[in-house]
Amino acid sequence: MTAPEPEAMANAFRPGVTPLSPAAALAVERRQRLLGPAYRLFYDHPIYPVRAEGVWIQDRDGKTYLDAYNNVACLGHAHPRVVAAVAEQMARLNTHTRYIQDGILDYAESLLASFPAALGHVMFTCSGSEANDLALRIASEVTGGTGIIVTRHAYHGVTSVLAGLSPSLGAGNRLGDHVQLIDLPDPASPDPSADFASAVSAALASFARAGIRPAAILFDTIFSSDGVYADPPGFFNAGVSLARQAGALFIADEVQPGFGRIGPQMWNFRRHGAEPDMVSMGKPMGNGYPVAALVVKPALLEQFGAKTRYFNTFGGSSAAIAAANAVWQVLAEQDLPQNAETVGRYFRQRLADYIGRNGITAVRGCGLFLAVDFHRDGQPWAKGAHHLVNAMRERGVLISATGRAANILKIRPPLVFSAENVDFFMDRFDSALADLHNIR
Amino acid sequence: MTAPEPEAMANAFRPGVTPLSPAAALAVERRQRLLGPAYRLFYDHPIYPVRAEGVWIQDRDGKTYLDAYNNVACLGHAHPRVVAAVAEQMARLNTHTRYIQDGILDYAESLLASFPAALGHVMFTCSGSEANDLALRIASEVTGGTGIIVTRHAYHGVTSVLAGLSPSLGAGNRLGDHVQLIDLPDPASPDPSADFASAVSAALASFARAGIRPAAILFDTIFSSDGVYADPPGFFNAGVSLARQAGALFIADEVQPGFGRIGPQMWNFRRHGAEPDMVSMGKPMGNGYPVAALVVKPALLEQFGAKTRYFNTFGGSSAAIAAANAVWQVLAEQDLPQNAETVGRYFRQRLADYIGRNGITAVRGCGLFLAVDFHRDGQPWAKGAHHLVNAMRERGVLISATGRAANILKIRPPLVFSAENVDFFMDRFDSALADLHNIR
Repeated sequence: MTAPEPEAMANAFRPGVTPLSPAAALAVERRQRLLGPAYRLFYDHPIYPVRAEGVWIQDRDGKTYLDAYNNVACLGHAHPRVVAAVAEQMARLNTHTRYIQDGILDYAESLLASFPAALGHVMFTCSGSEANDLALRIASEVTGGTGIIVTRHAYHGVTSVLAGLSPSLGAGNRLGDHVQLIDLPDPASPDPSADFASAVSAALASFARAGIRPAAILFDTIFSSDGVYADPPGFFNAGVSLARQAGALFIADEVQPGFGRIGPQMWNFRRHGAEPDMVSMGKPMGNGYPVAALVVKPALLEQFGAKTRYFNTFGGSSAAIAAANAVWQVLAEQDLPQNAETVGRYFRQRLADYIGRNGITAVRGCGLFLAVDFHRDGQPWAKGAHHLVNAMRERGVLISATGRAANILKIRPPLVFSAENVDFFMDRFDSALADLHNIR
Repeated sequence: MTAPEPEAMANAFRPGVTPLSPAAALAVERRQRLLGPAYRLFYDHPIYPVRAEGVWIQDRDGKTYLDAYNNVACLGHAHPRVVAAVAEQMARLNTHTRYIQDGILDYAESLLASFPAALGHVMFTCSGSEANDLALRIASEVTGGTGIIVTRHAYHGVTSVLAGLSPSLGAGNRLGDHVQLIDLPDPASPDPSADFASAVSAALASFARAGIRPAAILFDTIFSSDGVYADPPGFFNAGVSLARQAGALFIADEVQPGFGRIGPQMWNFRRHGAEPDMVSMGKPMGNGYPVAALVVKPALLEQFGAKTRYFNTFGGSSAAIAAANAVWQVLAEQDLPQNAETVGRYFRQRLADYIGRNGITAVRGCGLFLAVDFHRDGQPWAKGAHHLVNAMRERGVLISATGRAANILKIRPPLVFSAENVDFFMDRFDSALADLHNIR
């Protein structure tokens, strides 16, 4: 029994496209039976991994894949420092924030030192979803408003409120009442700052007409689900200013670009010279251990904390902080944000050689967050992107697709990715592209 | 700078009540400065733990505490099987549910075998909050309704929607528009089933008058934040039937009572002979590793999965499942649900000897989830409960208080608690109670 497919997810497994091994077919059937119809696998031929180390994932047949997609394992898979830190902490003490612990305070101090002084408090959660949801609770309490501005193909998490402002979850996913969607500037626009400001202005005007008080403008600072738009630096600031003048708070979602992926500036909002009221972060924070956080201006929390309290059973618990602290130390010791910048630049250069060939129309990104656009006959070419993602998978390289039209490659490897890994990637890329000639 | 205190949380640290050591005073100041005013510590004199093992927690001064409160470490703190399972899995592979993995399927199969056959699917999240929030998304999608019935002093989690139906977060915490609160039957009532049904009926009538379609009746099956009401078995079923006849789904929150705490029936709804549409679980599931889940009837997910998809970055990831699987195995191998029943019965008997003395008016509970009521002059005596919780802490035993009037002791030790631990507890209890003579 297969549920009807909602609006296609980029790179979702579709049963029947490719013959599966007996083991994979059995596992797919068990997933459907046990986990139900809301789960999705990646690729026409799903990956069946059994181990991973650094930038390599190995499947049950012994085939290895270069991981150019998973940002959670930012230090590389199975990083020994993180494994050791978690194991050591779990064997000693793993408890919650209603007891005093030094680890959380030491980590909070280190983390906050990477933020502008105005962002002075940090609260810990299990997931980026919980962090974004908390940001909206605070915004609602502080502003008294309900209107939220997000981007056209945004994704911000899985809670009721966040799914209600995550249009990328598909046409069947109901949006909230007080959500306004704004388009990103055309990459070819001569004045993206004016375009973005004009989109925000229109959203605010809609709120005003409906008597809705704005609470927040919330976006992923690299617009990952919209298609990865990193430049030009500062292009969203004028729009954000308009929203703030209308009473909205600015929540910068750094769940995907944060923790050095965009380079030594660590947080993408800093690259843009922006000044958020709150910043959410998550995915790579514990290299796979569930931990996330929200950094907030103290004045906002003063109001929130006077009304209510916050406790998250696992958020900021001892082992979560041990994992986060190990990640933070290794990022610094190995200068991984700089590596992301250096290797990312080389990676973009190599990819840019293909612009104008095989449907490739643009290469974008920042640090180790890259995007490649596909078009054919002047239209977004989802089929080309889909085919390439799967052709790369067959050649042992993992990437995915993104964007409203699903015509954009999403390349987002661990931060330990090397120039040699880029060369390996480009070798397979060249070969996979050759297949595209046969695709209409 | 101290934020104004919202409605008192039971057992919240209040600065200035007890002199703190210089180290604790410094840590309290750092917490305020780094984490902000929404965080709360427990006890007049907060605990400053540095290690824990089994049922014992040790603080930085070398003082040990018998842990009779923390349900997360259900197998005991730092359980070697869980530590080893997590460390081994993290060193091998720790990735997400968009790749095929056997571990999640094997665990799902074992877990679902403990549920009635009608509850056939399980979805994984990081926290009980995420599980309850997902349940409400599904209920909203399937019923098309918005009305939610919860208990008077409910707590269901930290997301926007869940905080909106968690009145126990305090008077400053804003409740949602379509939330109806119902009172629990008086423990002395001759017909608690009729009382509960009548409360549900009144809530449904309020929805009907307002033109609100019911979506769900959601409660913690042991009513932990309301004051721990375990008996009589089945007392809520008639009320639940009324809600379902009106179109609501029944979501059983087993985040606190689940995983064998109430005895060999494993889930408290089974003890009540109830048939929920969805069951949420969390806290003890990974013995401290963040993992939680929602068990759902397949027909409900068919509708939900046809409209949208679900992905949770850390929910059901490899190490989370390894932790959950280790917990599940140890629970069975050591027959801990049976231990909870046996030791819990002995514990209640010992406590019951004190009824009628020192303000103690009742002892309740099931398995290793116990409650002790305090009254004075016929009124709930919060001061007595508060004093006792802190007197126990000074004597090296950790418990807390609960209930709308905060006059109820909440005793909820790890499931490995022994009769000897009970004797240790009762020895300190006897001595701590003696202090109550001086309290008005």
